[in-house]
Amino acid sequence: MRFGVLGTGTVGDAIASKLVALGHEVKMGARDARNEKAAAWVARSGARASQGSFADAASFGELLFNCTSGAGSLEALKAAGEANLAGKVLIDIANPLDFSKGMPPTLFVSNTDSLGEQLQRAFPKTHVVKTLNTLNAQLMVAPGSLAGGDHDLFMSGNDAAAKGKVKELLQSFGWKTIHDLGDITTARGTESILPLWIRLWGALGSPSFNFKIVR
Amino acid sequence: MRFGVLGTGTVGDAIASKLVALGHEVKMGARDARNEKAAAWVARSGARASQGSFADAASFGELLFNCTSGAGSLEALKAAGEANLAGKVLIDIANPLDFSKGMPPTLFVSNTDSLGEQLQRAFPKTHVVKTLNTLNAQLMVAPGSLAGGDHDLFMSGNDAAAKGKVKELLQSFGWKTIHDLGDITTARGTESILPLWIRLWGALGSPSFNFKIVR
Repeated sequence: MRFGVLGTGTVGDAIASKLVALGHEVKMGARDARNEKAAAWVARSGARASQGSFADAASFGELLFNCTSGAGSLEALKAAGEANLAGKVLIDIANPLDFSKGMPPTLFVSNTDSLGEQLQRAFPKTHVVKTLNTLNAQLMVAPGSLAGGDHDLFMSGNDAAAKGKVKELLQSFGWKTIHDLGDITTARGTESILPLWIRLWGALGSPSFNFKIVR
Repeated sequence: MRFGVLGTGTVGDAIASKLVALGHEVKMGARDARNEKAAAWVARSGARASQGSFADAASFGELLFNCTSGAGSLEALKAAGEANLAGKVLIDIANPLDFSKGMPPTLFVSNTDSLGEQLQRAFPKTHVVKTLNTLNAQLMVAPGSLAGGDHDLFMSGNDAAAKGKVKELLQSFGWKTIHDLGDITTARGTESILPLWIRLWGALGSPSFNFKIVR
Protein backbone atom coordinates (compact mmCIF):
# COMPACT_ATOMS: atom_id res chain seq x y z
CA MET A 1 0.00 0.00 0.00
CA ARG A 2 1.11 3.59 -0.58
CA PHE A 3 1.43 5.91 2.42
CA GLY A 4 2.04 9.62 2.79
CA VAL A 5 3.69 10.61 6.08
CA LEU A 6 3.54 14.33 6.84
CA GLY A 7 6.32 15.34 9.19
CA THR A 8 10.00 14.50 9.54
CA GLY A 9 10.43 14.47 13.32
CA THR A 10 10.79 11.51 15.68
CA VAL A 11 7.20 10.42 15.14
CA GLY A 12 7.27 10.75 11.35
CA ASP A 13 10.54 8.84 11.19
CA ALA A 14 9.27 6.03 13.42
CA ILE A 15 6.00 5.64 11.52
CA ALA A 16 7.56 5.88 8.05
CA SER A 17 10.28 3.39 8.94
CA LYS A 18 7.75 0.91 10.32
CA LEU A 19 5.60 1.20 7.19
CA VAL A 20 8.61 0.54 4.94
CA ALA A 21 9.60 -2.41 7.13
CA LEU A 22 6.10 -3.82 6.65
CA GLY A 23 6.58 -3.65 2.86
CA HIS A 24 4.65 -0.47 2.10
CA GLU A 25 5.73 2.37 -0.18
CA VAL A 26 6.15 5.60 1.78
CA LYS A 27 6.66 9.20 0.79
CA MET A 28 7.72 11.47 3.64
CA GLY A 29 6.47 15.02 3.20
CA ALA A 30 7.82 18.30 4.52
CA ARG A 31 7.38 21.99 3.82
CA ASP A 32 10.56 21.84 1.75
CA ALA A 33 10.51 18.95 -0.75
CA ARG A 34 14.26 18.51 -0.19
CA ASN A 35 14.07 18.52 3.62
CA GLU A 36 17.36 17.19 5.03
CA LYS A 37 15.86 14.93 7.69
CA ALA A 38 13.60 13.35 5.08
CA ALA A 39 16.59 12.92 2.75
CA ALA A 40 18.54 11.17 5.51
CA TRP A 41 15.57 8.89 6.15
CA VAL A 42 15.25 8.05 2.45
CA ALA A 43 19.00 7.36 2.20
CA ARG A 44 18.81 4.66 4.86
CA SER A 45 15.36 3.23 4.05
CA GLY A 46 15.74 1.61 0.63
CA ALA A 47 13.77 1.66 -2.60
CA ARG A 48 10.28 1.90 -1.08
CA ALA A 49 11.10 5.23 0.59
CA SER A 50 10.84 8.62 -1.07
CA GLN A 51 10.42 12.24 -0.09
CA GLY A 52 8.63 15.33 -1.31
CA SER A 53 6.56 18.30 -0.30
CA PHE A 54 3.50 17.97 1.95
CA ALA A 55 1.44 18.02 -1.27
CA ASP A 56 3.62 15.35 -2.91
CA ALA A 57 3.24 13.05 0.10
CA ALA A 58 -0.51 13.64 0.38
CA SER A 59 -0.99 13.03 -3.33
CA PHE A 60 1.13 9.86 -3.23
CA GLY A 61 -0.50 8.21 -0.24
CA GLU A 62 -3.69 6.16 -0.28
CA LEU A 63 -3.55 6.48 3.49
CA LEU A 64 -1.99 9.46 5.27
CA PHE A 65 -0.34 10.11 8.62
CA ASN A 66 -0.21 13.52 10.27
CA CYS A 67 3.06 13.45 12.22
CA THR A 68 3.63 17.19 12.21
CA SER A 69 3.76 19.17 15.45
CA GLY A 70 0.30 20.08 16.68
CA ALA A 71 0.99 23.81 16.35
CA GLY A 72 1.94 23.33 12.69
CA SER A 73 -0.64 20.71 11.67
CA LEU A 74 -3.30 22.94 10.18
CA GLU A 75 -0.74 24.84 8.09
CA ALA A 76 0.88 21.57 6.95
CA LEU A 77 -2.46 20.14 5.86
CA LYS A 78 -3.32 23.33 4.00
CA ALA A 79 0.01 23.03 2.20
CA ALA A 80 -0.80 19.38 1.46
CA GLY A 81 -3.91 20.62 -0.32
CA GLU A 82 -7.57 19.86 0.19
CA ALA A 83 -7.83 17.95 -3.10
CA ASN A 84 -4.94 15.64 -2.14
CA LEU A 85 -6.59 14.91 1.21
CA ALA A 86 -10.17 14.49 0.03
CA GLY A 87 -11.71 11.05 0.42
CA LYS A 88 -8.66 9.71 2.23
CA VAL A 89 -8.08 8.49 5.76
CA LEU A 90 -5.78 10.78 7.75
CA ILE A 91 -4.33 9.22 10.88
CA ASP A 92 -3.75 12.15 13.21
CA ILE A 93 -1.03 11.59 15.81
CA ALA A 94 -0.40 15.25 16.61
CA ASN A 95 -1.07 16.77 20.02
CA PRO A 96 -1.97 20.43 20.64
CA LEU A 97 1.06 21.10 22.81
CA ASP A 98 1.88 24.72 23.55
CA PHE A 99 5.51 25.20 24.59
CA SER A 100 5.32 28.99 24.45
CA LYS A 101 4.60 29.37 28.17
CA GLY A 102 7.51 27.20 29.30
CA MET A 103 7.64 23.66 30.63
CA PRO A 104 5.66 21.57 31.10
CA PRO A 105 3.67 22.46 27.96
CA THR A 106 -0.02 23.29 28.14
CA LEU A 107 -2.60 22.57 25.41
CA PHE A 108 -3.55 25.26 22.87
CA VAL A 109 -6.95 23.65 22.41
CA SER A 110 -8.70 21.47 25.00
CA ASN A 111 -11.80 20.72 27.03
CA THR A 112 -14.51 21.98 24.63
CA ASP A 113 -12.63 21.26 21.39
CA SER A 114 -9.61 19.30 20.17
CA LEU A 115 -6.99 19.41 17.46
CA GLY A 116 -8.54 16.32 15.87
CA GLU A 117 -11.85 18.15 15.58
CA GLN A 118 -10.17 21.28 14.23
CA LEU A 119 -8.53 19.25 11.46
CA GLN A 120 -11.76 17.38 10.71
CA ARG A 121 -13.68 20.65 10.46
CA ALA A 122 -11.04 22.19 8.20
CA PHE A 123 -11.07 19.15 5.86
CA PRO A 124 -14.60 17.74 5.95
CA LYS A 125 -13.98 15.42 2.98
CA THR A 126 -11.12 13.71 4.79
CA HIS A 127 -11.69 10.93 7.34
CA VAL A 128 -9.64 12.01 10.35
CA VAL A 129 -8.86 9.20 12.78
CA LYS A 130 -7.09 10.23 15.96
CA THR A 131 -4.89 7.55 17.46
CA LEU A 132 -1.33 6.77 18.65
CA ASN A 133 -1.14 10.24 20.26
CA THR A 134 -0.97 8.89 23.80
CA LEU A 135 2.49 7.35 23.79
CA ASN A 136 6.12 7.55 22.84
CA ALA A 137 7.12 7.21 19.16
CA GLN A 138 9.18 4.07 19.68
CA LEU A 139 6.27 2.32 21.39
CA MET A 140 3.80 3.40 18.68
CA VAL A 141 5.48 1.07 16.21
CA ALA A 142 6.75 -1.61 18.60
CA PRO A 143 4.06 -2.22 21.22
CA GLY A 144 5.43 -5.72 21.78
CA SER A 145 8.67 -4.25 23.13
CA LEU A 146 6.82 -3.28 26.32
CA ALA A 147 5.23 -6.00 28.50
CA GLY A 148 4.65 -8.18 25.45
CA GLY A 149 2.22 -5.61 24.07
CA ASP A 150 -0.17 -5.87 27.02
CA HIS A 151 -1.18 -2.18 26.99
CA ASP A 152 -3.78 -0.17 25.16
CA LEU A 153 -4.46 2.23 22.35
CA PHE A 154 -7.40 4.59 21.78
CA MET A 155 -9.08 5.63 18.54
CA SER A 156 -11.51 8.44 17.64
CA GLY A 157 -13.18 9.18 14.32
CA ASN A 158 -16.48 9.81 12.60
CA ASP A 159 -16.24 7.14 9.91
CA ALA A 160 -16.57 3.47 10.89
CA ALA A 161 -14.96 2.18 7.67
CA ALA A 162 -11.97 4.51 8.15
CA LYS A 163 -11.56 3.31 11.73
CA GLY A 164 -11.74 -0.27 10.49
CA LYS A 165 -8.84 0.33 8.08
CA VAL A 166 -6.80 2.06 10.77
CA LYS A 167 -7.45 -0.74 13.23
CA GLU A 168 -6.18 -3.29 10.72
CA LEU A 169 -3.04 -1.25 10.14
CA LEU A 170 -2.45 -0.84 13.88
CA GLN A 171 -2.83 -4.58 14.34
CA SER A 172 -0.09 -5.04 11.74
CA PHE A 173 2.07 -2.83 14.00
CA GLY A 174 1.41 -5.33 16.81
CA TRP A 175 -1.41 -3.60 18.69
CA LYS A 176 -3.80 -5.95 20.46
CA THR A 177 -6.22 -3.72 22.37
CA ILE A 178 -7.60 -0.67 20.58
CA HIS A 179 -10.50 1.13 22.28
CA ASP A 180 -12.84 2.82 19.80
CA LEU A 181 -14.00 5.80 21.88
CA GLY A 182 -16.49 7.06 19.31
CA ASP A 183 -16.60 10.06 16.99
CA ILE A 184 -13.86 12.64 16.54
CA THR A 185 -15.08 14.70 19.53
CA THR A 186 -13.70 11.91 21.73
CA ALA A 187 -10.23 13.08 20.66
CA ARG A 188 -10.71 15.58 23.50
CA GLY A 189 -10.29 12.60 25.79
CA THR A 190 -6.99 11.33 24.43
CA GLU A 191 -5.47 14.77 23.83
CA SER A 192 -6.34 15.62 27.44
CA ILE A 193 -4.27 12.70 28.67
CA LEU A 194 -1.10 14.53 27.65
CA PRO A 195 -0.87 16.67 30.83
CA LEU A 196 -0.85 13.41 32.83
CA TRP A 197 1.47 11.65 30.39
CA ILE A 198 4.05 14.45 30.67
CA ARG A 199 4.01 14.35 34.47
CA LEU A 200 4.23 10.56 34.53
CA TRP A 201 7.30 10.84 32.30
CA GLY A 202 8.79 13.08 35.01
CA ALA A 203 7.74 10.81 37.88
CA LEU A 204 8.90 7.59 36.18
CA GLY A 205 12.04 9.10 34.67
CA SER A 206 11.34 7.51 31.29
CA PRO A 207 8.86 7.91 28.41
CA SER A 208 8.76 4.14 27.87
CA PHE A 209 5.40 3.47 29.46
CA ASN A 210 1.81 3.25 28.37
CA PHE A 211 -1.69 3.07 29.75
CA LYS A 212 -3.61 -0.14 30.09
CA ILE A 213 -7.30 -0.15 30.90
CA VAL A 214 -7.89 -2.77 33.56
CA ARG A 215 -11.44 -4.13 33.60
CA MET B 1 -7.89 7.98 63.92
CA ARG B 2 -10.54 10.68 63.54
CA PHE B 3 -11.68 11.62 60.05
CA GLY B 4 -13.90 14.36 58.68
CA VAL B 5 -15.59 13.53 55.39
CA LEU B 6 -17.09 16.51 53.58
CA GLY B 7 -19.86 15.43 51.25
CA THR B 8 -22.73 12.96 51.43
CA GLY B 9 -22.84 11.64 47.86
CA THR B 10 -21.67 8.31 46.46
CA VAL B 11 -18.01 9.17 47.02
CA GLY B 12 -18.48 10.50 50.55
CA ASP B 13 -20.53 7.46 51.50
CA ALA B 14 -17.98 5.02 50.07
CA ILE B 15 -15.02 6.72 51.76
CA ALA B 16 -16.76 7.21 55.12
CA SER B 17 -17.98 3.61 55.19
CA LYS B 18 -14.51 2.28 54.37
CA LEU B 19 -12.94 4.38 57.13
CA VAL B 20 -15.46 3.12 59.70
CA ALA B 21 -14.85 -0.46 58.51
CA LEU B 22 -11.14 0.07 59.12
CA GLY B 23 -11.89 1.09 62.71
CA HIS B 24 -11.67 4.85 62.40
CA GLU B 25 -14.06 7.43 63.85
CA VAL B 26 -15.77 9.39 61.11
CA LYS B 27 -17.92 12.49 61.06
CA MET B 28 -19.72 13.12 57.78
CA GLY B 29 -20.25 16.81 57.08
CA ALA B 30 -22.84 18.59 54.99
CA ARG B 31 -24.17 22.12 54.58
CA ASP B 32 -27.07 21.13 56.85
CA ALA B 33 -25.87 19.45 60.05
CA ARG B 34 -28.97 17.22 59.92
CA ASN B 35 -28.56 16.21 56.26
CA GLU B 36 -30.78 13.20 55.52
CA LYS B 37 -28.26 11.21 53.53
CA ALA B 38 -25.69 11.64 56.29
CA ALA B 39 -28.32 10.59 58.87
CA ALA B 40 -29.07 7.44 56.88
CA TRP B 41 -25.35 6.67 56.68
CA VAL B 42 -24.92 7.17 60.44
CA ALA B 43 -27.94 4.95 61.15
CA ARG B 44 -26.40 1.99 59.36
CA SER B 45 -22.74 2.59 60.29
CA GLY B 46 -22.55 2.04 64.05
CA ALA B 47 -21.03 3.89 66.96
CA ARG B 48 -17.95 5.22 65.19
CA ALA B 49 -20.08 7.18 62.70
CA SER B 50 -21.50 10.64 63.32
CA GLN B 51 -22.70 13.62 61.32
CA GLY B 52 -22.60 17.39 61.47
CA SER B 53 -22.04 20.55 59.51
CA PHE B 54 -19.03 21.01 57.23
CA ALA B 55 -17.42 22.91 60.12
CA ASP B 56 -18.26 20.13 62.61
CA ALA B 57 -16.68 17.50 60.38
CA ALA B 58 -13.59 19.60 59.65
CA SER B 59 -13.12 20.37 63.33
CA PHE B 60 -13.56 16.70 64.29
CA GLY B 61 -11.18 15.20 61.79
CA GLU B 62 -7.43 14.93 62.17
CA LEU B 63 -7.43 14.05 58.48
CA LEU B 64 -10.06 15.34 56.05
CA PHE B 65 -11.61 14.19 52.80
CA ASN B 66 -13.16 16.55 50.25
CA CYS B 67 -15.91 14.44 48.66
CA THR B 68 -18.12 17.34 47.63
CA SER B 69 -18.91 18.03 43.98
CA GLY B 70 -16.17 20.02 42.27
CA ALA B 71 -18.50 22.94 41.60
CA GLY B 72 -19.36 23.16 45.32
CA SER B 73 -15.96 22.40 46.82
CA LEU B 74 -14.70 25.92 47.42
CA GLU B 75 -17.97 26.96 49.07
CA ALA B 76 -18.01 23.80 51.22
CA LEU B 77 -14.46 24.41 52.42
CA LYS B 78 -15.26 28.03 53.22
CA ALA B 79 -18.21 26.79 55.29
CA ALA B 80 -15.87 24.28 56.96
CA GLY B 81 -13.78 27.24 58.09
CA GLU B 82 -10.15 28.12 57.53
CA ALA B 83 -9.27 27.55 61.20
CA ASN B 84 -10.73 24.04 61.15
CA LEU B 85 -8.72 23.19 58.03
CA ALA B 86 -5.41 24.81 59.02
CA GLY B 87 -2.44 22.48 59.51
CA LYS B 88 -4.45 19.45 58.38
CA VAL B 89 -4.19 17.14 55.41
CA LEU B 90 -7.13 17.47 53.03
CA ILE B 91 -7.51 14.59 50.59
CA ASP B 92 -9.20 16.15 47.58
CA ILE B 93 -11.19 13.69 45.43
CA ALA B 94 -13.36 16.27 43.68
CA ASN B 95 -13.22 16.88 39.93
CA PRO B 96 -14.05 20.20 38.24
CA LEU B 97 -16.90 18.77 36.19
CA ASP B 98 -19.22 21.24 34.51
CA PHE B 99 -22.58 19.70 33.64
CA SER B 100 -24.14 23.05 32.69
CA LYS B 101 -23.42 22.63 28.96
CA GLY B 102 -24.91 19.15 28.69
CA MET B 103 -23.35 15.71 28.46
CA PRO B 104 -20.60 14.71 28.47
CA PRO B 105 -19.48 17.27 31.06
CA THR B 106 -16.56 19.59 30.39
CA LEU B 107 -14.13 20.93 33.03
CA PHE B 108 -14.68 24.35 34.61
CA VAL B 109 -10.96 24.67 35.26
CA SER B 110 -8.24 22.87 33.29
CA ASN B 111 -5.01 23.06 31.34
CA THR B 112 -3.33 26.04 33.07
CA ASP B 113 -4.89 25.50 36.50
CA SER B 114 -6.77 22.85 38.45
CA LEU B 115 -9.33 22.52 41.21
CA GLY B 116 -6.66 21.06 43.47
CA GLU B 117 -4.56 24.20 43.01
CA GLN B 118 -7.57 26.46 43.52
CA LEU B 119 -8.29 24.80 46.87
CA GLN B 120 -4.63 24.90 47.89
CA ARG B 121 -4.42 28.62 47.05
CA ALA B 122 -7.62 29.36 48.98
CA PHE B 123 -6.35 27.47 52.05
CA PRO B 124 -2.57 27.86 52.11
CA LYS B 125 -2.25 26.47 55.65
CA THR B 126 -3.91 23.20 54.62
CA HIS B 127 -1.98 20.38 52.95
CA VAL B 128 -4.09 19.51 49.92
CA VAL B 129 -3.35 16.08 48.46
CA LYS B 130 -5.17 15.23 45.25
CA THR B 131 -5.82 11.54 44.73
CA LEU B 132 -8.55 8.95 44.08
CA ASN B 133 -10.19 11.33 41.57
CA THR B 134 -9.49 9.09 38.58
CA LEU B 135 -11.87 6.25 39.27
CA ASN B 136 -15.23 5.02 40.39
CA ALA B 137 -16.22 5.35 44.09
CA GLN B 138 -16.60 1.60 44.62
CA LEU B 139 -13.10 0.96 43.28
CA MET B 140 -11.58 3.75 45.39
CA VAL B 141 -12.19 1.74 48.54
CA ALA B 142 -11.93 -1.77 47.12
CA PRO B 143 -9.09 -1.83 44.58
CA GLY B 144 -8.68 -5.57 45.14
CA SER B 145 -12.13 -6.17 43.66
CA LEU B 146 -10.70 -5.43 40.19
CA ALA B 147 -7.92 -7.64 38.78
CA GLY B 148 -6.62 -8.34 42.28
CA GLY B 149 -5.72 -4.67 42.69
CA ASP B 150 -3.28 -4.65 39.78
CA HIS B 151 -4.06 -1.09 38.67
CA ASP B 152 -2.77 2.32 39.66
CA LEU B 153 -3.46 5.47 41.60
CA PHE B 154 -1.94 8.95 41.28
CA MET B 155 -1.16 11.51 43.94
CA SER B 156 -0.31 15.24 43.83
CA GLY B 157 0.59 17.58 46.67
CA ASN B 158 3.14 20.10 47.87
CA ASP B 159 3.95 18.50 51.22
CA ALA B 160 5.98 15.28 51.32
CA ALA B 161 4.91 14.37 54.86
CA ALA B 162 1.24 14.86 53.97
CA LYS B 163 1.65 12.62 50.93
CA GLY B 164 3.36 10.04 53.11
CA LYS B 165 0.34 9.94 55.46
CA VAL B 166 -2.07 9.69 52.54
CA LYS B 167 -0.06 6.92 50.94
CA GLU B 168 -0.20 4.90 54.17
CA LEU B 169 -3.95 5.38 54.37
CA LEU B 170 -4.42 4.39 50.72
CA GLN B 171 -2.35 1.28 51.32
CA SER B 172 -4.75 0.40 54.14
CA PHE B 173 -7.53 0.62 51.51
CA GLY B 174 -5.61 -1.99 49.50
CA TRP B 175 -3.77 0.21 47.00
CA LYS B 176 -0.46 -1.21 45.81
CA THR B 177 0.81 1.23 43.16
CA ILE B 178 0.52 4.94 43.90
CA HIS B 179 2.41 7.29 41.56
CA ASP B 180 3.55 10.49 43.27
CA LEU B 181 3.37 12.93 40.35
CA GLY B 182 4.84 15.87 42.25
CA ASP B 183 3.44 19.11 43.60
CA ILE B 184 -0.21 20.18 43.52
CA THR B 185 0.14 21.61 39.98
CA THR B 186 0.32 18.01 38.78
CA ALA B 187 -3.37 17.72 39.72
CA ARG B 188 -3.88 19.24 36.27
CA GLY B 189 -2.75 15.88 34.93
CA THR B 190 -5.19 13.71 36.83
CA GLU B 191 -8.15 16.10 36.56
CA SER B 192 -7.50 16.17 32.79
CA ILE B 193 -7.93 12.42 32.59
CA LEU B 194 -11.66 12.83 33.27
CA PRO B 195 -12.60 13.61 29.65
CA LEU B 196 -11.01 10.28 28.66
CA TRP B 197 -12.45 8.44 31.65
CA ILE B 198 -15.97 9.56 30.76
CA ARG B 199 -15.61 8.39 27.15
CA LEU B 200 -14.11 5.08 28.21
CA TRP B 201 -17.12 4.55 30.46
CA GLY B 202 -19.26 5.01 27.34
CA ALA B 203 -17.10 2.73 25.18
CA LEU B 204 -16.79 -0.02 27.80
CA GLY B 205 -20.37 0.26 29.06
CA SER B 206 -19.27 0.21 32.69
CA PRO B 207 -17.46 2.50 35.15
CA SER B 208 -15.69 -0.47 36.73
CA PHE B 209 -12.29 0.00 35.15
CA ASN B 210 -9.08 1.75 36.01
CA PHE B 211 -5.79 2.80 34.50
CA LYS B 212 -2.59 0.85 34.95
CA ILE B 213 0.74 2.28 33.92
CA VAL B 214 2.63 -0.44 32.08
CA ARG B 215 6.41 0.03 32.19
